[in-house]
Amino acid sequence: MGVIDLWYDFASTYSYLAVMRAETVAREADVALRWRPFLLGPIFKSHGMETSPFNIFPVKGRYSWRDLERLAARQGLPKFLLPVPFPANSLLAARTAVALPDAARPEFSRAVFHAEFAEGRDISDRGVIGELLSKLGHDADGVLARTGEQSLKDKLRTETEAAAAQGIFGAPSFVTEDGELFWGNDRFEHALDWARSLAKKK
Amino acid sequence: MGVIDLWYDFASTYSYLAVMRAETVAREADVALRWRPFLLGPIFKSHGMETSPFNIFPVKGRYSWRDLERLAARQGLPKFLLPVPFPANSLLAARTAVALPDAARPEFSRAVFHAEFAEGRDISDRGVIGELLSKLGHDADGVLARTGEQSLKDKLRTETEAAAAQGIFGAPSFVTEDGELFWGNDRFEHALDWARSLAKKK
Repeated sequence: MGVIDLWYDFASTYSYLAVMRAETVAREADVALRWRPFLLGPIFKSHGMETSPFNIFPVKGRYSWRDLERLAARQGLPKFLLPVPFPANSLLAARTAVALPDAARPEFSRAVFHAEFAEGRDISDRGVIGELLSKLGHDADGVLARTGEQSLKDKLRTETEAAAAQGIFGAPSFVTEDGELFWGNDRFEHALDWARSLAKKK
Repeated sequence: MGVIDLWYDFASTYSYLAVMRAETVAREADVALRWRPFLLGPIFKSHGMETSPFNIFPVKGRYSWRDLERLAARQGLPKFLLPVPFPANSLLAARTAVALPDAARPEFSRAVFHAEFAEGRDISDRGVIGELLSKLGHDADGVLARTGEQSLKDKLRTETEAAAAQGIFGAPSFVTEDGELFWGNDRFEHALDWARSLAKKK
Protein backbone atom coordinates (compact mmCIF):
# COMPACT_ATOMS: atom_id res chain seq x y z
CA MET A 1 0.00 0.00 0.00
CA GLY A 2 1.32 3.44 -0.91
CA VAL A 3 1.84 6.11 1.72
CA ILE A 4 1.72 9.90 1.44
CA ASP A 5 2.56 12.59 3.96
CA LEU A 6 -0.15 15.22 3.65
CA TRP A 7 1.30 18.56 4.81
CA TYR A 8 -1.24 21.30 5.46
CA ASP A 9 -1.61 24.64 7.19
CA PHE A 10 -4.97 25.55 8.71
CA ALA A 11 -4.74 29.09 7.27
CA SER A 12 -4.23 27.81 3.72
CA THR A 13 -7.16 28.05 1.33
CA TYR A 14 -6.04 25.29 -1.01
CA SER A 15 -5.21 23.07 1.98
CA TYR A 16 -8.92 23.33 2.79
CA LEU A 17 -9.87 21.89 -0.60
CA ALA A 18 -7.34 19.07 -0.31
CA VAL A 19 -8.20 18.14 3.27
CA MET A 20 -11.94 17.96 2.62
CA ARG A 21 -11.47 15.35 -0.11
CA ALA A 22 -8.31 13.68 1.21
CA GLU A 23 -9.74 10.57 2.84
CA THR A 24 -12.06 9.81 -0.07
CA VAL A 25 -9.47 10.10 -2.83
CA ALA A 26 -6.77 8.30 -0.83
CA ARG A 27 -9.13 5.41 -0.07
CA GLU A 28 -10.08 5.12 -3.74
CA ALA A 29 -6.38 5.06 -4.67
CA ASP A 30 -5.55 2.57 -1.90
CA VAL A 31 -2.98 4.97 -0.42
CA ALA A 32 -2.53 5.63 3.31
CA LEU A 33 -2.22 9.23 4.47
CA ARG A 34 -0.11 10.63 7.29
CA TRP A 35 -1.74 13.89 8.39
CA ARG A 36 0.97 16.44 9.13
CA PRO A 37 -0.19 19.94 10.05
CA PHE A 38 2.57 22.55 10.03
CA LEU A 39 3.00 26.33 9.96
CA LEU A 40 3.62 28.03 6.64
CA GLY A 41 4.26 31.44 8.25
CA PRO A 42 7.86 30.75 9.36
CA ILE A 43 8.63 29.27 5.92
CA PHE A 44 7.18 32.31 4.11
CA LYS A 45 9.26 34.53 6.41
CA SER A 46 12.44 32.62 5.59
CA HIS A 47 11.73 33.48 1.92
CA GLY A 48 11.30 37.16 2.78
CA MET A 49 7.46 37.19 2.76
CA GLU A 50 5.74 38.65 5.81
CA THR A 51 2.23 37.53 4.79
CA SER A 52 0.42 35.39 2.24
CA PRO A 53 1.46 35.88 -1.41
CA PHE A 54 -2.26 36.54 -2.02
CA ASN A 55 -1.90 39.70 0.07
CA ILE A 56 1.50 40.67 -1.41
CA PHE A 57 0.15 40.41 -4.98
CA PRO A 58 -3.46 41.67 -4.80
CA VAL A 59 -4.29 40.89 -8.44
CA LYS A 60 -3.32 37.27 -7.77
CA GLY A 61 -5.26 37.30 -4.51
CA ARG A 62 -8.45 38.53 -6.17
CA TYR A 63 -8.11 35.86 -8.83
CA SER A 64 -7.56 33.20 -6.19
CA TRP A 65 -10.74 34.04 -4.26
CA ARG A 66 -12.69 33.58 -7.50
CA ASP A 67 -10.78 30.38 -8.29
CA LEU A 68 -11.59 29.06 -4.81
CA GLU A 69 -15.28 29.89 -5.20
CA ARG A 70 -15.36 27.94 -8.45
CA LEU A 71 -13.36 25.01 -7.07
CA ALA A 72 -15.49 24.76 -3.93
CA ALA A 73 -18.58 24.62 -6.13
CA ARG A 74 -17.05 21.94 -8.39
CA GLN A 75 -16.15 19.92 -5.30
CA GLY A 76 -19.65 20.18 -3.83
CA LEU A 77 -18.51 22.24 -0.83
CA PRO A 78 -20.53 25.11 0.68
CA LYS A 79 -20.02 28.64 -0.70
CA PHE A 80 -16.39 29.60 -0.08
CA LEU A 81 -15.95 32.33 2.54
CA LEU A 82 -12.74 34.23 3.07
CA PRO A 83 -12.01 34.73 6.77
CA VAL A 84 -11.25 38.25 7.97
CA PRO A 85 -8.43 38.85 8.60
CA PHE A 86 -6.77 36.64 6.02
CA PRO A 87 -4.69 34.63 6.58
CA ALA A 88 -6.03 33.47 9.94
CA ASN A 89 -3.56 32.78 12.72
CA SER A 90 -3.41 28.99 12.54
CA LEU A 91 -1.10 28.37 15.51
CA LEU A 92 -3.75 27.21 18.01
CA ALA A 93 -5.49 24.97 15.47
CA ALA A 94 -2.20 23.38 14.45
CA ARG A 95 -1.12 22.77 18.06
CA THR A 96 -4.53 21.27 18.82
CA ALA A 97 -4.31 18.96 15.79
CA VAL A 98 -0.86 17.81 16.90
CA ALA A 99 -2.12 17.27 20.45
CA LEU A 100 -4.85 14.88 19.29
CA PRO A 101 -4.23 11.19 18.63
CA ASP A 102 -3.41 10.41 14.96
CA ALA A 103 -6.79 8.76 14.43
CA ALA A 104 -8.70 11.88 15.53
CA ARG A 105 -6.73 14.34 13.40
CA PRO A 106 -8.56 14.00 10.05
CA GLU A 107 -12.02 14.63 11.50
CA PHE A 108 -10.83 17.54 13.65
CA SER A 109 -8.96 19.06 10.69
CA ARG A 110 -12.05 18.96 8.49
CA ALA A 111 -14.09 20.59 11.26
CA VAL A 112 -11.57 23.43 11.59
CA PHE A 113 -11.41 24.07 7.84
CA HIS A 114 -15.20 23.99 7.56
CA ALA A 115 -15.58 26.52 10.39
CA GLU A 116 -13.00 28.76 8.72
CA PHE A 117 -13.88 28.67 5.02
CA ALA A 118 -17.55 27.65 4.99
CA GLU A 119 -18.67 29.56 8.10
CA GLY A 120 -16.07 32.36 8.18
CA ARG A 121 -15.25 31.76 11.86
CA ASP A 122 -12.05 32.79 13.62
CA ILE A 123 -9.97 29.64 14.18
CA SER A 124 -7.48 31.50 16.39
CA ASP A 125 -10.25 31.80 19.01
CA ARG A 126 -9.95 29.27 21.86
CA GLY A 127 -13.73 29.30 22.20
CA VAL A 128 -14.17 28.21 18.59
CA ILE A 129 -11.56 25.44 18.80
CA GLY A 130 -12.97 24.32 22.15
CA GLU A 131 -16.47 24.12 20.70
CA LEU A 132 -15.26 22.00 17.78
CA LEU A 133 -13.41 19.66 20.14
CA SER A 134 -16.47 19.21 22.33
CA LYS A 135 -18.76 18.55 19.38
CA LEU A 136 -16.38 15.77 18.28
CA GLY A 137 -16.49 14.22 21.75
CA HIS A 138 -13.08 15.33 22.99
CA ASP A 139 -12.25 16.73 26.42
CA ALA A 140 -11.88 20.31 25.16
CA ASP A 141 -10.30 21.74 28.30
CA GLY A 142 -7.85 18.88 28.56
CA VAL A 143 -6.75 19.09 24.92
CA LEU A 144 -6.48 22.90 25.02
CA ALA A 145 -4.37 22.67 28.18
CA ARG A 146 -1.98 20.33 26.36
CA THR A 147 -1.50 22.90 23.55
CA GLY A 148 0.25 25.12 26.12
CA GLU A 149 2.84 22.50 27.06
CA GLN A 150 6.39 23.11 25.87
CA SER A 151 6.82 19.58 24.53
CA LEU A 152 3.76 20.07 22.33
CA LYS A 153 4.96 23.45 21.06
CA ASP A 154 8.32 21.88 20.26
CA LYS A 155 6.64 19.05 18.38
CA LEU A 156 4.88 21.45 16.01
CA ARG A 157 8.09 23.47 15.54
CA THR A 158 9.97 20.27 14.67
CA GLU A 159 7.28 19.36 12.13
CA THR A 160 7.56 22.77 10.47
CA GLU A 161 11.35 22.41 10.31
CA ALA A 162 10.93 18.95 8.79
CA ALA A 163 8.62 20.42 6.14
CA ALA A 164 11.14 23.14 5.25
CA ALA A 165 13.96 20.58 5.13
CA GLN A 166 12.01 18.60 2.55
CA GLY A 167 11.77 21.65 0.29
CA ILE A 168 8.18 22.49 1.17
CA PHE A 169 7.33 26.14 0.44
CA GLY A 170 3.53 26.06 0.21
CA ALA A 171 0.48 24.11 1.26
CA PRO A 172 -0.96 21.65 0.74
CA SER A 173 2.11 19.59 -0.12
CA PHE A 174 2.35 15.85 -0.60
CA VAL A 175 5.51 13.79 -0.06
CA THR A 176 5.86 10.16 -1.04
CA GLU A 177 8.12 7.63 0.70
CA ASP A 178 11.02 8.28 -1.71
CA GLY A 179 10.93 12.00 -0.87
CA GLU A 180 9.16 13.12 -4.07
CA LEU A 181 7.40 16.44 -3.42
CA PHE A 182 4.10 17.56 -4.96
CA TRP A 183 2.73 21.03 -4.26
CA GLY A 184 -0.87 22.10 -4.39
CA ASN A 185 -4.33 20.62 -4.37
CA ASP A 186 -4.01 20.23 -8.16
CA ARG A 187 -1.17 17.72 -7.68
CA PHE A 188 -2.95 15.45 -5.18
CA GLU A 189 -3.82 12.90 -7.88
CA HIS A 190 -0.26 12.94 -9.23
CA ALA A 191 1.09 12.24 -5.75
CA LEU A 192 -1.38 9.35 -5.39
CA ASP A 193 -0.27 7.92 -8.73
CA TRP A 194 3.36 8.21 -7.66
CA ALA A 195 2.74 6.52 -4.29
CA ARG A 196 0.84 3.70 -5.94
CA SER A 197 3.54 3.07 -8.47
CA LEU A 198 6.18 3.05 -5.69
CA ALA A 199 4.13 0.49 -3.77
CA LYS A 200 3.97 -1.75 -6.85
CA LYS A 201 7.77 -1.75 -7.17
CA LYS A 202 8.22 -3.12 -3.64
CA MET B 1 -19.59 26.51 -30.09
CA GLY B 2 -17.65 27.82 -27.11
CA VAL B 3 -14.72 30.19 -27.54
CA ILE B 4 -11.64 30.72 -25.37
CA ASP B 5 -8.87 33.28 -25.60
CA LEU B 6 -5.62 31.41 -24.96
CA TRP B 7 -3.09 33.90 -23.59
CA TYR B 8 0.51 32.70 -23.55
CA ASP B 9 4.06 33.98 -23.28
CA PHE B 10 6.81 32.18 -25.18
CA ALA B 11 9.11 32.35 -22.14
CA SER B 12 6.55 30.65 -19.88
CA THR B 13 7.16 27.03 -18.95
CA TYR B 14 3.55 26.16 -18.20
CA SER B 15 2.42 27.96 -21.38
CA TYR B 16 4.54 25.36 -23.20
CA LEU B 17 2.54 22.51 -21.66
CA ALA B 18 -0.79 24.18 -22.47
CA VAL B 19 0.11 25.15 -26.03
CA MET B 20 1.36 21.67 -26.96
CA ARG B 21 -2.00 20.11 -26.04
CA ALA B 22 -4.27 23.05 -26.82
CA GLU B 23 -5.63 22.11 -30.22
CA THR B 24 -6.31 18.51 -29.20
CA VAL B 25 -8.19 19.27 -26.00
CA ALA B 26 -10.11 22.18 -27.52
CA ARG B 27 -11.21 20.04 -30.46
CA GLU B 28 -12.36 17.26 -28.12
CA ALA B 29 -14.32 19.84 -26.10
CA ASP B 30 -15.75 21.47 -29.24
CA VAL B 31 -14.34 24.84 -28.21
CA ALA B 32 -12.65 27.31 -30.57
CA LEU B 33 -9.39 28.92 -29.47
CA ARG B 34 -8.13 32.41 -30.16
CA TRP B 35 -4.33 32.29 -29.88
CA ARG B 36 -3.13 35.46 -28.13
CA PRO B 37 0.60 35.71 -27.45
CA PHE B 38 1.56 38.51 -25.06
CA LEU B 39 4.46 39.59 -22.88
CA LEU B 40 4.41 38.71 -19.20
CA GLY B 41 7.54 40.79 -18.44
CA PRO B 42 5.81 44.21 -18.37
CA ILE B 43 3.01 42.74 -16.21
CA PHE B 44 5.50 41.21 -13.72
CA LYS B 45 7.26 44.60 -13.61
CA SER B 46 4.02 46.41 -12.82
CA HIS B 47 3.71 44.07 -9.80
CA GLY B 48 7.25 44.90 -8.70
CA MET B 49 8.91 41.74 -10.02
CA GLU B 50 11.97 42.19 -12.22
CA THR B 51 12.20 38.55 -13.28
CA SER B 52 10.29 35.27 -13.09
CA PRO B 53 8.92 34.32 -9.65
CA PHE B 54 10.85 31.07 -10.17
CA ASN B 55 14.07 33.10 -9.98
CA ILE B 56 12.87 35.34 -7.13
CA PHE B 57 11.95 32.30 -4.98
CA PRO B 58 14.63 29.68 -5.77
CA VAL B 59 13.04 26.92 -3.66
CA LYS B 60 9.86 27.34 -5.73
CA GLY B 61 11.89 27.44 -8.94
CA ARG B 62 13.69 24.18 -8.14
CA TYR B 63 10.37 22.53 -7.36
CA SER B 64 8.88 23.80 -10.61
CA TRP B 65 11.64 22.37 -12.80
CA ARG B 66 10.95 18.98 -11.24
CA ASP B 67 7.20 19.47 -11.61
CA LEU B 68 7.69 20.35 -15.29
CA GLU B 69 9.84 17.27 -15.87
CA ARG B 70 7.10 15.10 -14.40
CA LEU B 71 4.31 16.88 -16.29
CA ALA B 72 6.15 16.71 -19.62
CA ALA B 73 6.58 12.97 -19.10
CA ARG B 74 2.89 12.52 -18.20
CA GLN B 75 1.93 14.44 -21.33
CA GLY B 76 4.19 12.36 -23.59
CA LEU B 77 6.47 15.32 -24.40
CA PRO B 78 10.28 15.03 -24.77
CA LYS B 79 12.47 15.44 -21.69
CA PHE B 80 11.91 18.96 -20.36
CA LEU B 81 14.94 21.23 -20.80
CA LEU B 82 15.31 24.56 -19.06
CA PRO B 83 16.73 27.23 -21.38
CA VAL B 84 19.79 29.18 -20.18
CA PRO B 85 19.27 31.98 -19.35
CA PHE B 86 15.78 31.54 -17.94
CA PRO B 87 13.44 33.14 -18.68
CA ALA B 88 14.26 33.55 -22.36
CA ASN B 89 13.62 36.91 -23.98
CA SER B 90 10.35 36.19 -25.77
CA LEU B 91 9.92 39.51 -27.58
CA LEU B 92 11.00 38.39 -31.06
CA ALA B 93 8.99 35.16 -30.91
CA ALA B 94 5.89 37.04 -29.77
CA ARG B 95 6.20 39.68 -32.48
CA THR B 96 6.70 36.95 -35.08
CA ALA B 97 3.62 35.07 -33.88
CA VAL B 98 1.57 38.27 -34.09
CA ALA B 99 2.96 38.98 -37.58
CA LEU B 100 1.74 35.62 -38.90
CA PRO B 101 -1.82 35.02 -40.09
CA ASP B 102 -4.14 33.63 -37.39
CA ALA B 103 -4.23 30.22 -39.04
CA ALA B 104 -0.43 29.85 -38.94
CA ARG B 105 0.00 30.88 -35.30
CA PRO B 106 -0.71 27.55 -33.55
CA GLU B 107 1.84 25.55 -35.58
CA PHE B 108 4.50 28.26 -35.29
CA SER B 109 3.89 28.58 -31.55
CA ARG B 110 4.33 24.85 -31.00
CA ALA B 111 7.57 24.94 -33.02
CA VAL B 112 8.96 27.79 -30.88
CA PHE B 113 8.05 26.08 -27.60
CA HIS B 114 9.52 22.78 -28.78
CA ALA B 115 12.81 24.47 -29.78
CA GLU B 116 12.94 26.19 -26.39
CA PHE B 117 11.90 23.52 -23.89
CA ALA B 118 12.63 20.25 -25.72
CA GLU B 119 15.83 21.34 -27.53
CA GLY B 120 17.04 24.10 -25.19
CA ARG B 121 17.52 26.58 -28.05
CA ASP B 122 17.61 30.37 -27.71
CA ILE B 123 14.32 31.73 -29.05
CA SER B 124 15.57 35.33 -28.90
CA ASP B 125 17.96 34.47 -31.76
CA ARG B 126 16.77 35.68 -35.19
CA GLY B 127 18.56 32.73 -36.80
CA VAL B 128 16.54 30.25 -34.71
CA ILE B 129 13.21 31.96 -35.40
CA GLY B 130 14.09 32.32 -39.10
CA GLU B 131 14.91 28.61 -39.32
CA LEU B 132 11.59 27.65 -37.73
CA LEU B 133 9.70 29.95 -40.12
CA SER B 134 11.46 28.46 -43.15
CA LYS B 135 10.80 24.89 -42.01
CA LEU B 136 7.11 25.71 -41.79
CA GLY B 137 7.14 27.13 -45.33
CA HIS B 138 6.99 30.83 -44.47
CA ASP B 139 9.04 33.60 -46.09
CA ALA B 140 11.37 33.97 -43.11
CA ASP B 141 13.03 37.22 -44.23
CA GLY B 142 9.69 38.81 -45.06
CA VAL B 143 8.08 37.85 -41.74
CA LEU B 144 11.15 38.90 -39.70
CA ALA B 145 11.18 42.26 -41.51
CA ARG B 146 7.55 42.80 -40.48
CA THR B 147 8.47 42.26 -36.80
CA GLY B 148 10.46 45.50 -36.99
CA GLU B 149 7.50 47.61 -38.17
CA GLN B 150 6.06 50.05 -35.66
CA SER B 151 2.46 48.97 -36.29
CA LEU B 152 3.40 45.38 -35.45
CA LYS B 153 5.22 46.41 -32.28
CA ASP B 154 2.18 48.46 -31.27
CA LYS B 155 -0.10 45.51 -31.91
CA LEU B 156 1.80 43.31 -29.44
CA ARG B 157 1.91 46.13 -26.88
CA THR B 158 -1.86 46.56 -27.20
CA GLU B 159 -2.36 42.84 -26.69
CA THR B 160 -0.26 42.91 -23.52
CA GLU B 161 -2.25 45.89 -22.22
CA ALA B 162 -5.48 44.02 -23.01
CA ALA B 163 -4.21 41.05 -21.02
CA ALA B 164 -3.38 43.21 -18.00
CA ALA B 165 -6.77 44.97 -18.26
CA GLN B 166 -8.48 41.57 -17.99
CA GLY B 167 -6.68 40.84 -14.73
CA ILE B 168 -4.12 38.49 -16.24
CA PHE B 169 -1.00 38.16 -14.07
CA GLY B 170 0.50 34.89 -15.30
CA ALA B 171 0.58 32.51 -18.23
CA PRO B 172 -1.02 30.56 -19.62
CA SER B 173 -4.36 32.20 -18.95
CA PHE B 174 -7.73 31.40 -20.44
CA VAL B 175 -10.60 33.87 -20.81
CA THR B 176 -14.12 32.90 -21.83
CA GLU B 177 -16.55 35.18 -23.69
CA ASP B 178 -18.13 36.44 -20.45
CA GLY B 179 -14.70 37.55 -19.18
CA GLU B 180 -14.18 34.66 -16.76
CA LEU B 181 -10.45 34.22 -16.14
CA PHE B 182 -8.66 30.92 -15.55
CA TRP B 183 -4.94 30.84 -14.78
CA GLY B 184 -2.53 28.03 -15.41
CA ASN B 185 -2.26 24.86 -17.45
CA ASP B 186 -4.08 23.08 -14.59
CA ARG B 187 -7.21 25.16 -15.27
CA PHE B 188 -7.42 24.52 -19.03
CA GLU B 189 -10.13 21.88 -18.58
CA HIS B 190 -12.11 24.12 -16.24
CA ALA B 191 -12.03 26.92 -18.83
CA LEU B 192 -13.21 24.48 -21.50
CA ASP B 193 -16.08 23.35 -19.26
CA TRP B 194 -17.03 26.98 -18.63
CA ALA B 195 -16.93 27.89 -22.35
CA ARG B 196 -19.04 24.86 -23.23
CA SER B 197 -21.63 25.66 -20.63
CA LEU B 198 -21.79 29.29 -21.85
CA ALA B 199 -22.33 28.08 -25.41
CA LYS B 200 -25.21 25.87 -24.27
CA LYS B 201 -26.99 28.83 -22.64
CA LYS B 202 -27.04 30.76 -25.94
